[in-house]
Order: sequence, then structure tokens, then C-alpha cells
Amino acid sequence: MKVVAFTGMPGSGKSEAVKVAREMGIPVIRMGDCVWEEVKRRGLELNDENVGRIANEMREKYGKEIWAKKTFEKIDPSWDIVVIDGIRNIEEVDFFREKLGKDFTLIAIHASPETRYRRLMERRREDDSATLEKIKERDERELGWGIGVVIAMADVIIVNEGSLEEFRKKIKRMLID
Amino acid sequence: MKVVAFTGMPGSGKSEAVKVAREMGIPVIRMGDCVWEEVKRRGLELNDENVGRIANEMREKYGKEIWAKKTFEKIDPSWDIVVIDGIRNIEEVDFFREKLGKDFTLIAIHASPETRYRRLMERRREDDSATLEKIKERDERELGWGIGVVIAMADVIIVNEGSLEEFRKKIKRMLID
Repeated sequence: MKVVAFTGMPGSGKSEAVKVAREMGIPVIRMGDCVWEEVKRRGLELNDENVGRIANEMREKYGKEIWAKKTFEKIDPSWDIVVIDGIRNIEEVDFFREKLGKDFTLIAIHASPETRYRRLMERRREDDSATLEKIKERDERELGWGIGVVIAMADVIIVNEGSLEEFRKKIKRMLID
Repeated sequence: MKVVAFTGMPGSGKSEAVKVAREMGIPVIRMGDCVWEEVKRRGLELNDENVGRIANEMREKYGKEIWAKKTFEKIDPSWDIVVIDGIRNIEEVDFFREKLGKDFTLIAIHASPETRYRRLMERRREDDSATLEKIKERDERELGWGIGVVIAMADVIIVNEGSLEEFRKKIKRMLID
């Protein structure tokens, strides 16, 4: 079985890569869904505050790889390939590498800050909250969680500076290989 | 003027990229030289311990961008292009971006951990200290200094998974552009 995890900074095209996988009929496990399930299991309301709090509480209690563990349990051994969405820290990567060895591929999507900021500004043109300042704050938050380390330690980096079609082709080729 | 900084994990090919630049006659400023000069200025012996201590002392006293500042002062305004070797943290990148704007390009060289570890093991075949454990420790040290964030925030990523010749061509093309 092939387990592919996508990572990337906001605006890099990570979500588009996951979309391509879905369109190809590849099962996708969102790591965030595991957090949602835990929030629901506890009878709490599904809002940002509760989700963030439970995610962190569980990391502190059971280790930084807890959501990777929960995600791993959702993998159906009968699948040929599965995509994992939402890797945030290197402990999660180490967990998957230890469990899966060569069957695990970490793919980082990269675009320059300039390209990413332009995309994020355009995407939310009608949303006043999409200020450059807020976009930079989000970058810093993700980097604080350790996404830079995850990108540095990726098996494959796919550059997404060109057209959407070109990028979708690169992702398809990667997932078919 | 074009100011190009190379960054990358150990074994990625960063030093080879710097070598290509030198062969092309492009001036190269090693950020580490600024630290060496400070160590010598103080009449201290040039060893790892003193270099590391002075580098950190100055960062704590004058800010994490201090070595970028010292490096910036060495740029000769008459140059068309210059390569900076040794960027380690995002504060240094921010300093150059603020000073130089579009004239500054941060290029990250990337290879998978598997490729990098193989290269580093081969390179030091006759050196007993080149254990996989020590190589991984060096990775962790560099990531601790914040090199992951620098890679995530690069303007350009050059993938170095193929042959040396292929890689050298990519770097040349980048520096001629």
C-alpha cells in the first residue's frame, strides 16, 4: 500500500492537490476529522475554540504524534493508495515513517511567499479579513507548529508557481506513479 | 544588483551551488566569515567552540539578524550579482528582504532525507564519525536553528535528486537569469 501525505504553507496549493486525489477516486483521510470526532465524542460544540483546545490537550497528554496514530487506525488495509491531509509536525511524520517505511511518501507543495500571498489575497477578494497582515500571521502560526521542519524533511517537493493545469498534472503523475 | 542566498539541509547540494557560483566568477560572501573575523578581532583562537559561542553571544546581544547585517556591509555596490552563503534563520531573511526587496532571492536546495543521508554517508566513507546517528543529529541541530522555516519561506526551490551535472546546470541557469 502507498500512503501519501501532502503538506505545504497556506496558499501553496495543498488543498488543490488533495482535491485532485479525490477526483481520482483515492481515499483521503483528513487528520482534522479525527479531532472533530473526539470533540463530538465528548459532547462538545464543534467550533474553532473547542477543536483547537482538544487538539492541543490530546497532544500534551498523549504525545505530538497522537493525531497521526488516530489517522493511521483509519487506514483500510485493502486500499492500494490513500492520501493523508493535515500533517503539521515532524513527530507525526516520524510516526508514519516508522510504521510504514518505504510505503510512506511525504510530499511538500511549495510556492514563494509572493505567489502564495497573491493567491490568498485574490481568493478572498470580497472578504475584508484577508489583509496581508492576517495572512502573514497565519504563516507564522503554521511555522510555529513546525510545518517548516516538515517541508525541509519531505521526500518530494512539488513546485507550484505555474498554471493550475500544470500543477494538477504534476500531482496526477505523482499519484499514478 | 542581484543578491542570491542559498540555503538547504546538510547533503542537499548547497555547497555545490556555491561552488558553481564561484566558478562563474560571482563573488561569494560566507556569513561564517563575519563570525571568524569577530573571533579574530577579539584575539581568540579560531576553533568550533569559540566560533559557536561568539556567534550566539552576538545574536543574543544584537538580535538574530546581526550576522546578516555584518554580511550586508560587505556587499560592494559595484557588483552586478553576489551570492550569500550561510543563511540560518528567518530573521536574517527578513533583514535582507527589507533592505533589498526584489533584488534579493532566497534559493533553497532540496533533496529527500534518504538522498541526503546516502550522500553524506558516501562522502565520508573513510571517516568513522559519519554514522547515521551523527548525521541525524546534525539535521536536528540545523532544524533547531530554524532552517526549516527558511526553506518554507524560500522564493525558489531547486530539487537536487538527479545527477551532479543536471544540478549544476540548474544552478547556472538560475544565476544567469
